[in-house]
Amino acid sequence: MRTTQYLLSTLKETPSDAEVISHQLMLRAGMIRKLASGLYTWLPSGLKVLRKVEQIVREEMNKAGAIEVLMPVVQPADLWEESGRWEKFGPELLRIKDRHERPFLLGPTHEEVITELVRKEISSYKQLPVNLYQVQTKFRDEVRPRFGVMRAREFLMKDAYSFHLTEDCLEKTYQAMHQAYCNIFDRLGLEYRPVLADTGSIGGSTSHEFHVLADSGEDAIVFSDGSDYAANIEKAEALPPQGERPAATQNQEKIATPNTHSIAQVCERLKIDASQTVKTLLVVGANAEGEEQGVVALVVRGDHELNEVKAEKLENVFSPLTMANEAQIQQAVNCSAGSIGPVDLNIPVIVDHSAAHLADFVAGANEDGFHFTGLNWDRDISHYQVADIRNVVEGDPSPCGTGKLSIKRGIEVGHIFQLGTKYSEAMKAGVLTESGKHETLTMGCYGIGVSRIVAAAIEQNHDKFGIKWPAAIAPFQVCVLPMNMHKSHRIPDVANKLYTDLQQAGYEVLFDDRKERPGVMFADMELIGVPHVIVIGERNLDEGLVEYKNRQTGEKQTIKIEDVLSFIQQQMV
Amino acid sequence: MRTTQYLLSTLKETPSDAEVISHQLMLRAGMIRKLASGLYTWLPSGLKVLRKVEQIVREEMNKAGAIEVLMPVVQPADLWEESGRWEKFGPELLRIKDRHERPFLLGPTHEEVITELVRKEISSYKQLPVNLYQVQTKFRDEVRPRFGVMRAREFLMKDAYSFHLTEDCLEKTYQAMHQAYCNIFDRLGLEYRPVLADTGSIGGSTSHEFHVLADSGEDAIVFSDGSDYAANIEKAEALPPQGERPAATQNQEKIATPNTHSIAQVCERLKIDASQTVKTLLVVGANAEGEEQGVVALVVRGDHELNEVKAEKLENVFSPLTMANEAQIQQAVNCSAGSIGPVDLNIPVIVDHSAAHLADFVAGANEDGFHFTGLNWDRDISHYQVADIRNVVEGDPSPCGTGKLSIKRGIEVGHIFQLGTKYSEAMKAGVLTESGKHETLTMGCYGIGVSRIVAAAIEQNHDKFGIKWPAAIAPFQVCVLPMNMHKSHRIPDVANKLYTDLQQAGYEVLFDDRKERPGVMFADMELIGVPHVIVIGERNLDEGLVEYKNRQTGEKQTIKIEDVLSFIQQQMV
Repeated sequence: MRTTQYLLSTLKETPSDAEVISHQLMLRAGMIRKLASGLYTWLPSGLKVLRKVEQIVREEMNKAGAIEVLMPVVQPADLWEESGRWEKFGPELLRIKDRHERPFLLGPTHEEVITELVRKEISSYKQLPVNLYQVQTKFRDEVRPRFGVMRAREFLMKDAYSFHLTEDCLEKTYQAMHQAYCNIFDRLGLEYRPVLADTGSIGGSTSHEFHVLADSGEDAIVFSDGSDYAANIEKAEALPPQGERPAATQNQEKIATPNTHSIAQVCERLKIDASQTVKTLLVVGANAEGEEQGVVALVVRGDHELNEVKAEKLENVFSPLTMANEAQIQQAVNCSAGSIGPVDLNIPVIVDHSAAHLADFVAGANEDGFHFTGLNWDRDISHYQVADIRNVVEGDPSPCGTGKLSIKRGIEVGHIFQLGTKYSEAMKAGVLTESGKHETLTMGCYGIGVSRIVAAAIEQNHDKFGIKWPAAIAPFQVCVLPMNMHKSHRIPDVANKLYTDLQQAGYEVLFDDRKERPGVMFADMELIGVPHVIVIGERNLDEGLVEYKNRQTGEKQTIKIEDVLSFIQQQMV
Repeated sequence: MRTTQYLLSTLKETPSDAEVISHQLMLRAGMIRKLASGLYTWLPSGLKVLRKVEQIVREEMNKAGAIEVLMPVVQPADLWEESGRWEKFGPELLRIKDRHERPFLLGPTHEEVITELVRKEISSYKQLPVNLYQVQTKFRDEVRPRFGVMRAREFLMKDAYSFHLTEDCLEKTYQAMHQAYCNIFDRLGLEYRPVLADTGSIGGSTSHEFHVLADSGEDAIVFSDGSDYAANIEKAEALPPQGERPAATQNQEKIATPNTHSIAQVCERLKIDASQTVKTLLVVGANAEGEEQGVVALVVRGDHELNEVKAEKLENVFSPLTMANEAQIQQAVNCSAGSIGPVDLNIPVIVDHSAAHLADFVAGANEDGFHFTGLNWDRDISHYQVADIRNVVEGDPSPCGTGKLSIKRGIEVGHIFQLGTKYSEAMKAGVLTESGKHETLTMGCYGIGVSRIVAAAIEQNHDKFGIKWPAAIAPFQVCVLPMNMHKSHRIPDVANKLYTDLQQAGYEVLFDDRKERPGVMFADMELIGVPHVIVIGERNLDEGLVEYKNRQTGEKQTIKIEDVLSFIQQQMV
């Protein structure tokens, strides 16, 4: 491709509304343009990358025996009423009406549509198992779309759905998909980790997320240094402290702590460590039907963080987890949020294992301006439950029993679920078994954020000059960069020949034939991140040489003109 | 692909709601399934065909220098307000609101979005011309979706948009796209015609449609037998009759014609030919601003048909063409529609050239139960205009001046337009010219109905047994069909080997390894339309042979097992 016949659209300035590096670089390198909030047009270079990711995903899905279909973007509401999600799904589900005022939606996911298809097309156990996938545009009406295509409203996703007669059969396909995902991310050339994950609103039992590791990742993921254990921090179990709780040595004492609202302020004033305090958070409670009812106190150690996913799974806590508002707090404890503590509360109190292991600890006195010191469980606080409701921290013992935990940041790019019968039961999808019995299908589902991978790859692979694409997904493989082409005949002749030769050898070549200053051309190619750059300049030509630069390593060397093709071929191996 | 590990989903019965053969066969052959009115899921075999069509389109677009991008399905309303189409577009434009109540739409076409992109990215004449395209899902909220994917609401389209500084430059790209489209339909293996077309609501001057010829086509297309002239009947000019109008020989006479409401009934009663009568249609008129105003009478010969596209372009006729309702008719002529005639009307009368060439003709008397005979223009009817407002008919002289016209049926699968400045002017898309002047861009646009091509290919290529795919877009190239595989060891051994060999040679092979009766398997393969079928049966194996059947020609022959691969390779040349 000649740049003069292409839409390069690079930008010198970093757009002010782009917060993360991938968003900045995708705009600057001419990969995407914003059409409206959370809606992006893919420019030619971006689309090339997107299609390469899509193709690798497709090939590995096919290799794993999945069969490709294509379901509509627009879905009828009645299927979502059947599954119960028409009501339950939040405003991220964009509900629309057609000209006849019939309700539809823009698909954020396709469980209902695939289950509708399968219950009509598959009637016998002989047709099972089956794993159907698509690569399709999805829409989620995010309240605050951000980070470019990382959290867009319209995005490209690969979603697969498998159907089985037994849990064992599901487990096999689940493992095959786990392996296929590893193959995909290996081929993409990304550093990634599969981690245990929560199943969230999609439902089901077992679930793994696939994370591209990057410091800018929104998720914290947790690893054992002694085993393969890896999990999203949402999911990672915090083991209860070992041994007996220390005995009480202090008396409960109420002390004045004016203008002390945070754990940090309490610690400073009392010259203690945060690990000797607890913080008490009030959240909305739930009755046996899961409806909102009253408030519940959650207690974690002062140096720990509440794990919302763990908390909202507790029986008497409303899901999704909702912090109590000021009125609810006033009604329950008659003090401000910074002064709450577990003593003498007449609401349910749930205490994290680590907090419940403390003796002689400090907590709010449920009275503005006062804290208790010398608190001890059972002696001073009698009604409470103990549960795992905190995030693990660096150095915690691994829940697998071996090693200690460390934490890294990740970008979620894939998620696989053992769904079970959540959708097939609600939508009555079943088959006749060998013995003629009607059996409800067991489902798995497997998603990859195709467009998000493009952004994640950049978060992981960039430097101050621009993108450093992994070879498999670079928009172009080679760039031919003639310096001051219009000033000589030799340079365009050599450049044209190399361009033609490399193209004929099957490479995707970007030939920068613009009349731009060398500095501009270099900067653009670094920004776009073409892995292999051939620079053609007067001085080297005198000796029959061109310069080669590797974008990944930064290495430069001169090569004989006649060796360029074989040299590039060697680089590709 | 083994059928037991595939979603074949063939149907024996023809679904009752499928009117046209392509819709029936796409359902029966397991290509598509209906999700809701006008919304279809593409099953694996259908998707394979769709992707092949898409890939051929993409390759030829790239070859012609077009650059691929991808624009969102969901578009913000403000751009359509700028172009004026937010108001003008009918209810086919699905208008939606996001969670913040901001107006959006599902894109039926992308002129606004691409113009928005280009006005931001392209600022200099040096970046021109540029031709950007995408293959993207579109949505049109058809009032009555029908014929399966032929007229679906959600469909796949390739749309390209070119931008130029001059009309000449546009003309060049337009011709290049015309050629690219011919290349595409040649490669698809379809019988097609490019024809002159009306530009309709998209706007612009010159326009060609590409039609796949098929008896079931919704469009009439018109050819000269003496030249290359071809046009959509909407667009084809009807030349005025040559020579002088015959002189009047009869007197105007009013005769009773009770219960005579149609031209056919009048002709039968009066023993005359329809070509000796005129029919008068009342349509809604327009004022100078194009707003609705009164009614207008349109007069065509009794054996001719009104051309609505021509009619609605007349200055005093409202567009879109709207037949007068009963109240409007009563008010204008005080008789029912079947008795209207051009005599003594006090509304504008527009007469087709052929009707205006009649002498001694018959027409309604504007009084129920009466007609006039012996009518003559000017003598009996004084106030009227003459214009071309009829469809051409077989045998009409070609408007190119050479040959006579014949008419065939076609399915519109492509449409190219010289748009001019309609969108670029409204949306202020321009560049700086070499002399530093700001110039509005000139645009072309070029569409191909990718999903519709799949249906059109079937309309043109089928027999009573099923689909006869053109080689380039068949879902599979070869089918391996073992007869009663489970009854012998020999048959599966040979079948497996052939399957493996053919796959390794790079062919897409469907291996029907079901335990089905031979008749069922044959019927399915004929229905799906795999071009080359290898049948493996006991009797032939005794002689080291298999049977080959060509789906296109129906030819059968036996081949030595060891020659199968080379034989298939020969067929593919």
